[in-house]
Amino acid sequence: MTVTLPSVSEKHRVRLQPLELPERLLLGPGPSNAHPAVLEAISRPPIGHLDPKFLELMTEVQGLLRYIWQTDNRLTIPVSGTGSAAMEATIANSVEPGDVVLVGVMGYFGNRLVDMAGRYGADVRTIHKPWGDVFSLAELRQALEEHRPQILALVHAETSTGAEQPLAGVGDLCREFDCLLLIDTVTSLGAVPTLLDEWGVDLAYSCSQKGLSCPPGVSPFTMGPRAEEKLARRKGKVANWYLDMSLLNQYWGSDRVYHHTAPVNMNFGIREALRLIADEGIETVWKRHRDNAEYLWAGLEDLGLTCHVPVENRLPTLTTVRIPEGVDGKAVSRQLLDEHGIEMGGGLGELAGKVWRIGLMGYNSRRENVDRLLSILADVLPRS
Amino acid sequence: MTVTLPSVSEKHRVRLQPLELPERLLLGPGPSNAHPAVLEAISRPPIGHLDPKFLELMTEVQGLLRYIWQTDNRLTIPVSGTGSAAMEATIANSVEPGDVVLVGVMGYFGNRLVDMAGRYGADVRTIHKPWGDVFSLAELRQALEEHRPQILALVHAETSTGAEQPLAGVGDLCREFDCLLLIDTVTSLGAVPTLLDEWGVDLAYSCSQKGLSCPPGVSPFTMGPRAEEKLARRKGKVANWYLDMSLLNQYWGSDRVYHHTAPVNMNFGIREALRLIADEGIETVWKRHRDNAEYLWAGLEDLGLTCHVPVENRLPTLTTVRIPEGVDGKAVSRQLLDEHGIEMGGGLGELAGKVWRIGLMGYNSRRENVDRLLSILADVLPRS
Repeated sequence: MTVTLPSVSEKHRVRLQPLELPERLLLGPGPSNAHPAVLEAISRPPIGHLDPKFLELMTEVQGLLRYIWQTDNRLTIPVSGTGSAAMEATIANSVEPGDVVLVGVMGYFGNRLVDMAGRYGADVRTIHKPWGDVFSLAELRQALEEHRPQILALVHAETSTGAEQPLAGVGDLCREFDCLLLIDTVTSLGAVPTLLDEWGVDLAYSCSQKGLSCPPGVSPFTMGPRAEEKLARRKGKVANWYLDMSLLNQYWGSDRVYHHTAPVNMNFGIREALRLIADEGIETVWKRHRDNAEYLWAGLEDLGLTCHVPVENRLPTLTTVRIPEGVDGKAVSRQLLDEHGIEMGGGLGELAGKVWRIGLMGYNSRRENVDRLLSILADVLPRS
Repeated sequence: MTVTLPSVSEKHRVRLQPLELPERLLLGPGPSNAHPAVLEAISRPPIGHLDPKFLELMTEVQGLLRYIWQTDNRLTIPVSGTGSAAMEATIANSVEPGDVVLVGVMGYFGNRLVDMAGRYGADVRTIHKPWGDVFSLAELRQALEEHRPQILALVHAETSTGAEQPLAGVGDLCREFDCLLLIDTVTSLGAVPTLLDEWGVDLAYSCSQKGLSCPPGVSPFTMGPRAEEKLARRKGKVANWYLDMSLLNQYWGSDRVYHHTAPVNMNFGIREALRLIADEGIETVWKRHRDNAEYLWAGLEDLGLTCHVPVENRLPTLTTVRIPEGVDGKAVSRQLLDEHGIEMGGGLGELAGKVWRIGLMGYNSRRENVDRLLSILADVLPRS
């Protein structure tokens, strides 16, 4: 059989050299550098998403996520996308049109939750705190009294401000008001204590490229029994096919029914990333992050710099540092990147132009990285 | 400052060995084996998603996708998820509640389009063909006359049946009826001619793990000017935050505004995958796939096996072979996997238990792989 192939336009044919990339020490809000063993794992030849060996790996990943999140939740899986996809998965699977969703906004990612919940038909209510601040239990109680929501959504680790929202007692409060507790642990999982079951969290999400030392591309998601019940009771289909947990549950649960082709290599990566954390022990990992953060904070203070968040609410993973008066924050960041290969983040939203964001997460949370950054900052910044 | 760290439950702490994976030749419906240069690229240390070098890479990927799809569409990007996410992106960004969406169902993935479109509030109409068959231009005209849809959705390469839907003339028809043409090229992009602009396609999606020889995890998406106009005109927000092209366009367009953290390493991979195809030349790639497929078909015939799809509609990428009477199809597949490390697909949906699915895609479309498979099949199958 002879088939005539069509003629082809060369208009968009670009001739490129093989990939060349600069070396970077990623000390911004993420992605953070990946562990070399994780990079090695994602470079393995793929196997099928229904291969017996891959099904075994899925079980391992689920178990290790439960350990690191400290939860017994059955439905704990890596979503096939980046952190925002896992965020949307918690919303899509819990919100029914007309539900009152109360969002605690204390930074950029709270606002994202507001936007997402609205798209799923929620009656969204908000409470606000200045960027860098957190909510007290009394303030949350008052807001629950007033709004009587079906879901309370809070950001545990606000990546835009570097503040950590305390969560002890919040789950009890939500049970008292018969509402689900949904939290963002994008910048805390695998680095800062996340005691999901002890706190009474019903839905949570995270990412792979921060505390887990894996490149971005698969993102932890978990939902507990109360959230599963709400999903089972809902009248209409989840308004998102790709992230529908009633379908995904058939693949990640015992049935192993095909839903979509899992990003197998990224799953190789997260499996190794989680294994390394379990080897080190999660409490040791938490302590390492705190020790290195405190070492950074002391060094910044020695340089005459001020942290934006009070120490009692400061995240060990991400530090917002005020840009001193008269200093061009962007120029400093550019100099660090161009001359030293170090990425530091700028401010986001309300804090744009006001702070730098310094991340010490996962594989990068090491004393030598703090020393390197501090010594360069000492050279680059004007002496006060 | 002394912080007391909480005590930890060891219940889910699994002690694992470093990742060990079997070697597989993936001759099923996908994932297919990745090119070694692609695997090397995705193992590079990540850089930031707003790093100047990454922004440059984004432009390269967009250009190469336009070449391989043969389109000038400005909004051509890799979606941060697997093929089903890109599929949902075409639906989410084109369907407004109440729109009539006409889906041509000739296999499993047509049904998936029906499910997805319904979730976005479409008034879904369907036309059907037996699995393995395709629609004629006359049949499509008649259905457009009857249903007057806003969108016609067709599967160019039906992965569940191995049939290729001819598309020449369909875009003209859609313009005549003032409707958008949306097509699935998951099993055709980078392997079978996809002449998007010549055919008048308005929206298309694909995946990375088949014709492109990259692992799954980033997925080509494109929308043309007519689809962009509909998006700009829509009253409500796109009912999906992660896949909202009006937001993604600000990151992938010239503004480079942060939306979500791109899966940077998977983008390294697809950049290399597309570069390799552009180096080989897309028409050479198409010819290689056709030649190797014809070689496979001849070999299967020599073994007394029958292809499910008539040769004129048969996809070069994926061949459905009827399981001979009296042969246990699953047992043969298991034997191939366990004894020879070769993955072959089983039937899906209506064809479950009736066919095997043999993929020759991207890096795997090589004569030596056909020889290896045929010689094993000759040994394993009972002589007729």
